[in-house]
This record gives sequence, C-alpha cells and structure tokens, in this order.
Amino acid sequence: MPVFLDSQDPDFETAFAALLSAKREDSPDVDATVADIIADVRARGDAALLEYTAKFDRLELEAGGLAFSAQEVDELCARVSDEDRAALEHAAERIRAYHERQMPEDAQWTDAAGAMLGWRWGPVAAAGLYVPGGLASYPSSVLMNAIPAKVAGVPRLAITVPTPDGIANPLVLLAARISGVDEIYRVGGAQAIAALAYGTQTIRPVDKITGPGNAFVAAAKRRVFGRVGIDMIAGPSEILVIADADNDPDFIALDLLSQAEHDESAQSILITTDRAFGQAVAKAVDGHLKVLERRAIAGASWRDFGAVITVPDLDVAAALSDRVAPEHLELCVADPDALSAKITHAGAIFLGQWTPEAIGDYVGGPNHVLPTARSARFSSGLSVLDFLKRTTLARMTPEALRAIGPAAETLARAESLEAHGLSVTARLRKTNG
Amino acid sequence: MPVFLDSQDPDFETAFAALLSAKREDSPDVDATVADIIADVRARGDAALLEYTAKFDRLELEAGGLAFSAQEVDELCARVSDEDRAALEHAAERIRAYHERQMPEDAQWTDAAGAMLGWRWGPVAAAGLYVPGGLASYPSSVLMNAIPAKVAGVPRLAITVPTPDGIANPLVLLAARISGVDEIYRVGGAQAIAALAYGTQTIRPVDKITGPGNAFVAAAKRRVFGRVGIDMIAGPSEILVIADADNDPDFIALDLLSQAEHDESAQSILITTDRAFGQAVAKAVDGHLKVLERRAIAGASWRDFGAVITVPDLDVAAALSDRVAPEHLELCVADPDALSAKITHAGAIFLGQWTPEAIGDYVGGPNHVLPTARSARFSSGLSVLDFLKRTTLARMTPEALRAIGPAAETLARAESLEAHGLSVTARLRKTNG
Repeated sequence: MPVFLDSQDPDFETAFAALLSAKREDSPDVDATVADIIADVRARGDAALLEYTAKFDRLELEAGGLAFSAQEVDELCARVSDEDRAALEHAAERIRAYHERQMPEDAQWTDAAGAMLGWRWGPVAAAGLYVPGGLASYPSSVLMNAIPAKVAGVPRLAITVPTPDGIANPLVLLAARISGVDEIYRVGGAQAIAALAYGTQTIRPVDKITGPGNAFVAAAKRRVFGRVGIDMIAGPSEILVIADADNDPDFIALDLLSQAEHDESAQSILITTDRAFGQAVAKAVDGHLKVLERRAIAGASWRDFGAVITVPDLDVAAALSDRVAPEHLELCVADPDALSAKITHAGAIFLGQWTPEAIGDYVGGPNHVLPTARSARFSSGLSVLDFLKRTTLARMTPEALRAIGPAAETLARAESLEAHGLSVTARLRKTNG
Repeated sequence: MPVFLDSQDPDFETAFAALLSAKREDSPDVDATVADIIADVRARGDAALLEYTAKFDRLELEAGGLAFSAQEVDELCARVSDEDRAALEHAAERIRAYHERQMPEDAQWTDAAGAMLGWRWGPVAAAGLYVPGGLASYPSSVLMNAIPAKVAGVPRLAITVPTPDGIANPLVLLAARISGVDEIYRVGGAQAIAALAYGTQTIRPVDKITGPGNAFVAAAKRRVFGRVGIDMIAGPSEILVIADADNDPDFIALDLLSQAEHDESAQSILITTDRAFGQAVAKAVDGHLKVLERRAIAGASWRDFGAVITVPDLDVAAALSDRVAPEHLELCVADPDALSAKITHAGAIFLGQWTPEAIGDYVGGPNHVLPTARSARFSSGLSVLDFLKRTTLARMTPEALRAIGPAAETLARAESLEAHGLSVTARLRKTNG
C-alpha cells in the first residue's frame, strides 16, 4: 500500500517530510574495489580489460576482439525486425530535431570602450558513452546520449557495452549505428570507465563520459571526474502526477506504474484535488499489479515509495511538487499551461492528459536523461551543452586599454598582485608615450 | 630556471609530456576531517559553526553575530577609498554587461506531428558563494561569482567569508554589496560549506555553491555535491602565451609573472617562433624577479613549472597549446584572429599584445573563473548557465499521439517495459474511439 496523505491533515507536514527524505537506494560501498580496478587498467591496459571481461562477463576475448567490427555490427543489426528499426529511426529523427534547436550561438561584439568581446562554443574532441548490459540495456538510452553528442559535433564517439556470456543486444547496436557512433567496445563495469578515461592499447581516451550504470560504474565515474568530464550520477527514477478529477484513472495508474516498473527504488506520486479520484487511481494500480509482467518490481516500488496526496487546490499542488523537484512531472489538469507557470523545479514537464511520460522516454524529442533525487533544483537534463565547451574572447586596442586599464591597475594594487598591475602599466606607458 | 625546449629537438616529446604531467599540487588528504566537520554541522547547526569559528579563526561569536548586519556592512564599505570603489564599480558594470548577453532563451514550437515541444530556463532558488579569507580574499572573485548569479535571477545569494581574528576585508564587503548579495556570514572552511548545503538555525540551505577555497573547502564541496550543485574544483592557475618576435619582451615577462605570482604551483609557458625572443623574455622575467613583492612565490612557480618553447611556426604552437588546454591563452602575434581559429581547447583567449591577461582578471567583462588542469578540453568558465536550470516541455494532442505513439509502443515492447507501452495504448484506444 502506498501512503495516502491529505495536505490539510494536522500531521501532513511530518508525513510529507518523511516521504521526501526516504532513503530509496542502498548504494553498496564499492569504492575500494573500483579504485583497484581503475589502477589496474591504467597499469596494464588491454590485458586488464580482458581479464575483467573474462571474470565478470564470462567472455574470453583477445585484444583484437574488444572492438565490434563493422561486419559484426552489420550482422547484429540485420537481426532487428523492420518494425523495431522503423521505431528507432522515428525516435532518432525526433530526438535529433529537438536537440538541433539547442545549439547555442557564438557571439562577438565591440563595446563602447572599443574592446572586442565574445565567446565561441566547440565540441569536446571525444566522448564515451556507457551502456549497461543485461536487463537495463536500453536502445533508447543510446539514442538519448549519442544523438546530443553528434548534434554538438563531437568528432569521435565511443560506446562501451558489456556482453555477458557474449550476448549483445542487436537493438543497442542498431541504435548506436543510427546515432552515428564511431566505435563500440564489448567491455563494461568500472574497467570500461577506466579505459575511456585513461585509454588502453585498443581504446583511446575520451574527454567526456556519459551514460547510466550500476554502483561500480557510478563510483568509477566519480573517481575519474576531473581527468574527464562526466554527466550526472543518476538515481532511481521518479514521476509526480498532478491530476484533477476529470481524468481517466487508468491513464494515471499506468503512468505511475511506468516509473514503478523501472526499479524497486523508483518513486511514483499522485497529487490530486479529488480524494475519490485518488482512490480510483490506486484501485486501478492494484488491478494492473495483478497482471503486469514486472509486477514484482513495480509492486515493491509502489508499496514502499508510492504516495497519493489530496490537496485543496492546484496552488498547493504546485508548491508540494516544487519541494519534490521531480524528474518527471505530468500536469493532467484543465489548464496545464497555467499550472506549468507555477512550477519552478522539474526536470521535464508533460502537459495534459494526452502526454504520458512514456512518450518522453522514447519519441517526444526532449532528452530522457533527467535530474533525479531533487537535483532538478540546480541541474538540467542532458543536452548538447554537455558535449560543448565555451572559450571566452577578448581583444583590447590601445584606446580600450586606456579606458579600462586604470581600473585594473587599481584592483591589482588592492589585491596586492603587483605583476598583474605592472602588465597593464607597462602597456599604458607605451601607448601614452 | 624554467625549462627551455625546442619542438624540433629529438627529445622534445619526452620533455613536453613531462611538462604536461608534472604534478603541480600536493593536496593534503583532509577528507576524513571534512566528513567529521560536515556531520557535526548537520547535527548541531549554529553551535558547531561557532565552535569551529572560535577554533580556526580565533573569533568568539554568538549565533546573532554570524551574519554581518547592514550597519556593519555600511561601516566597512565606508572605509574603502573612492578610487577603489570606482574601480570596483567600473569592473562590476563591465562584468554585468558581458554576462547579460549570456542569458539563454526559452523556446516553444509545434512540430509537424502537432506536438508542442520546448524548454524554459529558470534560476536556482538560492546560491551560496564561498570567499576565502586572508591573503587570497579577492574582491574581484566576489564580482565574478556573484554577478552571474544575480544576472541569472537568483533571488537569494549568500556569501560566507572567514574573518580570522575578526578582521574583514572592506573591499570584499563592498564587492558583495555592489553585486547585490543578500546575506553575508563570517564563517569559513568546511563548516561554511556544510552550513550552505544543509542549513543551520541562522543560515538557510542553498541549492548551488560556487567559489574558490583551500583543500578543506574543496573536499567539502566534493562531499556535498549531489545534495547541492557545485562549480568546478579549481586547480592552480595557468597561462600560455604564444608570441612572435614582434613583441615587447617586458610585456610578455609580466604576463607570465602575473600567473606565477598567484601560487607556487601556478604554471606559465611561453611558446615562441623566435628563440632569441624567448631568451629575452626569460631575461626580463629574471629582472622582475629581483624586485617583485611576491618574488618568492613567483620565482618558485617559474623555476619549477615555467617553460619557454621554441617552435618553427604557429601551426605547431597551436597544436602544442591544445595539448596543454590552458586556462588562459594569450595570442601576441600579427594576426591573432587567424591563430585563434586554430585553437580548440582554452578557457579564455586574449587576442593581441594590448590584451594582458590581467585585464581579464578584473575589468574585461568575461569571467575569470576558468577551467584549470587541462579541463578546458571538456568544461567552460563560470557563466550565468551555472545558476540556471532548464525544464523541458512537451504537450501531445490526440493527433500527435496517434502519429508518434505507435513508435513508443514498439520501443517499450522491445525494452520489456510493459506499463510504458500500456500508458500509450490506453490513450490511443480512447482517441480511436
């Protein structure tokens, strides 16, 4: 049973705070193990990768077999049905179109002092994308990570994906090919992250690593941060639905379950202005939980972390939602735009009853890699910006230096940084005489 | 003596690689101490802050004295000379004008399928800025961190600054006031970061923490990352100058020294197409090192990490510079724009001989918080984007769902996520009748 709360109950604040602070994930402490693996890959390169792959993935390779050959990719891609291929291509096209609009512009101008100022953006030279193996090997995640990198103009994009017992997911390979990925390696875990960050004989190092992974992968990404850039460390998925009574309870129930089925630690919350509607949704959830394929996972998530909250009006709903700062927020109300304007913190907003969150997972266009665990308060979903960096530009003329140099001299003196000041003074002396 | 290298010498590659990999900073391992301090501040709040402030800053306060009052700020600001005040205001105005141009735009459009898509940006609700005390207490850093936050629209901006023995830097307080900072607290170290991240009775928690600090502050920022957003962990400063023979050696010497005087671990590198010019610059550096106030620091940096590299042409210079990926890059050549176009990785580029790097530290306009330690390969200087986050938006109509929903159903089935698919199927069934 999820918790049923009413924002007007006297003990609501305590119960809501408990919901917010519920520890939803037991992260095993694998940091020492991961440090050893990284050190080993740095020291021994491919030899270490091959040993770990034999040990963890039960797959004996030679160094030449670490990379998928073009022929191997061809063969795997050929196994994908026409329907699946068409769906992947449709999704890729929409994701690409959305992310192309995100490309930021360069700028350059001359100000009143005569100084030329500006900036320019450029892609990282190489990016690595981690793709989990086994059950959580999602082709949609390949599209969502690889397409922004390629739209940003990253010239070299490598994927690492473990292939336990040698089994590769053809859809993952096809998604990589459709996205324009340049290299694919059959290696996973912390050893894959180490190889991407430091390089081996076969795998050249990259500058940025993105993509989801288990506790070992997450710990390895934290460790190599600084050596390379990383994306966020994602936690379990969340959805918050704000719905009035004028909705089909079954739609909302399925939306809540589509997060719950991801992970026993996922969280699904319904906030509604109508208590009876909330109960109808909970009943519909229970019905689906009798038959859903992933009912064990979804049921545990809904039981342990699910919540149905009744509120007197949508202003209260918006305020509570901001305290959750949900990864996914559905607004199933008569005027979703008006309610959206009241929301400050959310990774992605899905407006109206015809926009199930699952559309955003696959084919909507926006990225499905979104901030979890309340981090939408300060961070954003994956975008082309994650694969770009900005260089600022400045060019003074003698006139511009005369106009603004004296302030720099004054501040350098105030900060006791003499050479800073002298580097301006020496030039001003020359321009003046 | 810095190292003198020639890119055409047979052993150049070895020497250059050694220069790149030189370990320039001994970070003491303070992680366990920092973990204890954070836990203590979380548990005891203000009481812990007061104890640490008494211990580390030799300053006995009561909780009411943690915050500077408006009157205290007034009194300190009144001590600043008119010249210093005018310079700070001039710098603030230029920094504000530059960062206002960085504000990204919201977007919203309807695509061919009838789906409304877009995103919107919003500021974090509260940001905290760490300002070091003592020698490295730079008012320019206050401007460079606080102004982008206020331009981004952050409604609540708090500063923490230690005041050892109760001594505050009036310029720091004035810079905070000019920048529009809302709250100023006299607390430093890991305890300040803990207070900003978790809150105490006096200091409400923030969502994002930026600003430089010592090893304790850096370790604390790493630890609270995830609970709040943080900026990059900055390493020692770097400058790389590419200069032809048509320059005043004294200008270039002072530019190299203006990084070297920051820190014994700073690094200054000159790449020149003219060996004799390189030697003239080194001679000018030696001259200044006899008299410069901070000659002990600058001399150690130049001796241990400085380098003068001769190259046959500017293409080689650009390629070597990209391998360094310098924080600051000066292009003192006849056509700096042409050379700039060949550069891929740099935090900030200063074009032409009239643009000393010190201009960028104070009054140029671009931010002086820039990526160090080769991280310009994958990251950018501080900007308004660091204080904003993006929410993606999507709204389907029944028609749009009919156009793109089937692809989502197919991919959900391919990923064995049944509820995802059903959430689309249930709606399609209803729209179809």
